[in-house]
Amino acid sequence: MQYPGKADLIQVAEQIRAFIHKTPVLTSETFNRLFEAELFFKCENFQKAGAFKSRGAVNAVLSLSGDEAENGVATHSSGNHAQALARAASIRGIPAYIVMPSNSSQVKIDAVKQYGGIITFCKPTLKDREDTLQQVMARTKAIEIHPYDNFDVIAGQATVAKELFEEVNGLDILLCPVGGGGLLSGTALAAAFFADATDVIACEPSGADDAMRSFREGRIIPSVNPQTIADGLLTSLGERNFPIIQQYVKDVVTVSETSIVKAMRLLFERMKIVVEPSAAVPLAALLEQKIIVKHQKVGIILSGGNIDLKKLPF
Amino acid sequence: MQYPGKADLIQVAEQIRAFIHKTPVLTSETFNRLFEAELFFKCENFQKAGAFKSRGAVNAVLSLSGDEAENGVATHSSGNHAQALARAASIRGIPAYIVMPSNSSQVKIDAVKQYGGIITFCKPTLKDREDTLQQVMARTKAIEIHPYDNFDVIAGQATVAKELFEEVNGLDILLCPVGGGGLLSGTALAAAFFADATDVIACEPSGADDAMRSFREGRIIPSVNPQTIADGLLTSLGERNFPIIQQYVKDVVTVSETSIVKAMRLLFERMKIVVEPSAAVPLAALLEQKIIVKHQKVGIILSGGNIDLKKLPF
Repeated sequence: MQYPGKADLIQVAEQIRAFIHKTPVLTSETFNRLFEAELFFKCENFQKAGAFKSRGAVNAVLSLSGDEAENGVATHSSGNHAQALARAASIRGIPAYIVMPSNSSQVKIDAVKQYGGIITFCKPTLKDREDTLQQVMARTKAIEIHPYDNFDVIAGQATVAKELFEEVNGLDILLCPVGGGGLLSGTALAAAFFADATDVIACEPSGADDAMRSFREGRIIPSVNPQTIADGLLTSLGERNFPIIQQYVKDVVTVSETSIVKAMRLLFERMKIVVEPSAAVPLAALLEQKIIVKHQKVGIILSGGNIDLKKLPF
Repeated sequence: MQYPGKADLIQVAEQIRAFIHKTPVLTSETFNRLFEAELFFKCENFQKAGAFKSRGAVNAVLSLSGDEAENGVATHSSGNHAQALARAASIRGIPAYIVMPSNSSQVKIDAVKQYGGIITFCKPTLKDREDTLQQVMARTKAIEIHPYDNFDVIAGQATVAKELFEEVNGLDILLCPVGGGGLLSGTALAAAFFADATDVIACEPSGADDAMRSFREGRIIPSVNPQTIADGLLTSLGERNFPIIQQYVKDVVTVSETSIVKAMRLLFERMKIVVEPSAAVPLAALLEQKIIVKHQKVGIILSGGNIDLKKLPF
């Protein structure tokens, strides 16, 4: 396997530029005082379709050859990748076939439809999601775009950190949530190529701690029955993501559900931004003092902001 | 009376630069599609202390002579000016005496205390607020900083629009909420000096429509028993603000409470930002089609984000 290299990331950033937001970096006196550190929040909750996933999806779709793209793209997802891929396909003018579990929230179903995605519903089990996707692909000849175990997706997600490094010099630490590892592996590559003095630290709910255990044991340990409010972080690490994470990530820390909710509320109240629970996981790690940041310059990736306002946990 | 001039606004922007955020301008595909226009949201909800009020308060405090500043500053306020003034005084190292009605929310009391403000509580009537402020000033010899009827405050608030014009060229329309008229008169001056092709339109809750009526009748008509969720817009126009508004504001439109709540929710859901009801009033005017914006470039000032999350109206 060949990871994306430095030149690839530069080219990818150029390729997707017109189709994504260069998201703002916010700072907060309150948080700086609280942690006696300088924090820089990269706001991917403001990204197109509400999450960093738009970067990888756009890059993957634009990287397809004409032949590959001809019959459209397909994936199974109940989350942010679904709408990001539907949007990316609409940019290229090809169909997006999205397999969604029947218990997906109406908000997410509507978002996929808004971007023109063609939805096939399935039972809410991993097996049925995968089987249904195979059937859809057999019927449509669409090509699968995996939400994270895909080098074009990884290279797209790497542009989050690349932009942050261009705006903020000399970060000591960069905190990133981890689910399947798409954002994390991209972030780690970007740090290796563009900011090699920056330590990338992954943050994960303790109720879905497969990345921490995999990182410690040196092999992928699948996520079994994970329980967390951070619904973007339920998945297991991908095969293409894990070696990058092993090589370039400094550490993985875990946080409690209570801290995630507290961090999420602080981001609403103090930074005046709407984030989904997964995005609050790195700040939760600071609240729990799992990472020592005193007098450090710290980047924090806020991964997304797609949440049902009727179901705020506070 | 002598309004602040163009050179004054340039000097003020320089004077306060180190003490305020240059707030980001956000855009949204969804809103652009919905209104068939190009919208640019100037996010003062991300400003220091959560609202544009920090600009005017900092400028007013820094503009005091040594003698004037010697005994500190004073105001009565239950809202954003209270914390903004407490913060501004702490920057100069002078005391801030804040008269707050006894029914002020704990969140706002805590915020004033956090910035070192010295609070005197009073009964929640305008008369008792004013009487108590006079007593506090007599005792402390502090100087009053009015929340809006003050040219240094107006010049500070003008920097919101000045920054927006520097970032976005060729705005056809700029929408601004109006309460006492501090932000609106500053915005109107900035447009007159830096973007004279831009029409400034004020947006106001119909339950507190004193600005609209004053504008139509050509004299200040005080706000009597105003009823609106937009608690930042309850006050009457100031004497220094009104002539500027008469001269440089194109129109005043009013909106319903239902539209304010709907606009506020859209800003949370689609732009992923936390705004207070007052800040949602301009978008409410677009939802009600009170202003024709099709194919126009439209600036919208989001005035603040200080809200009790326990009391979201949706």
